[in-house]
Amino acid sequence: MNLDFSKLDGLIPAVVQDSATRDVLMVGFMNEEAFQRTRDSGFVTFYSRGRRKLWTKGETSGNRLVVDEIRVDCDDDSVVVLARQTGAATCHLGYRSCFFRRVVGDALSEIAQPAGSLNQEAVR
Amino acid sequence: MNLDFSKLDGLIPAVVQDSATRDVLMVGFMNEEAFQRTRDSGFVTFYSRGRRKLWTKGETSGNRLVVDEIRVDCDDDSVVVLARQTGAATCHLGYRSCFFRRVVGDALSEIAQPAGSLNQEAVR
Repeated sequence: MNLDFSKLDGLIPAVVQDSATRDVLMVGFMNEEAFQRTRDSGFVTFYSRGRRKLWTKGETSGNRLVVDEIRVDCDDDSVVVLARQTGAATCHLGYRSCFFRRVVGDALSEIAQPAGSLNQEAVR
Repeated sequence: MNLDFSKLDGLIPAVVQDSATRDVLMVGFMNEEAFQRTRDSGFVTFYSRGRRKLWTKGETSGNRLVVDEIRVDCDDDSVVVLARQTGAATCHLGYRSCFFRRVVGDALSEIAQPAGSLNQEAVR
């Protein structure tokens, strides 16, 4: 296995998909270290571009993502992580998924209700 | 709706999820023009980083992706496109999904069989 971190300055996009509902919960970025940490710990870990450090999802909110399976695409430059939520929400705004809005015309319309409380965890 | 293309030099990651099977089919990148083209045409259109131009998925292979719904995340910096495949395969290697391998130990193991023929369409 040789992931290609070269196309995006050391990062690859990582899509987290709920193993049970199959909803896409969030998209983040991993560097090689975050990918290894995700594999070794069993908890989804990203590289925060804003804070420039590793960030295990839920480390402050408690809403962790437990890895069930990691899939790699044909170009070795992106991954899908099938995972289970330990809390009610993945989104820092309290929704199960960060993708809680859909495009309707030129606007966005909410397609879900918050399942948990707000938390201060930055998403990126 | 104000997508944030600033974090990644004018691009956002775009996850394509099969509306029917709910499998993640591929991940690409869109610039603002690709996003508009996707909305206006109803066919998933990416920005090819390698070729530096818009690229409507399937324009050479015929395996287009028809948009059913576009979802936007809480940070306005990534999208999930729910879509239907017009052909048998999204992956240029003939698989329905580009994510046809999973991590097993330090190796990758195929989890699917090719559904279509190889094509020369570059994925990025």
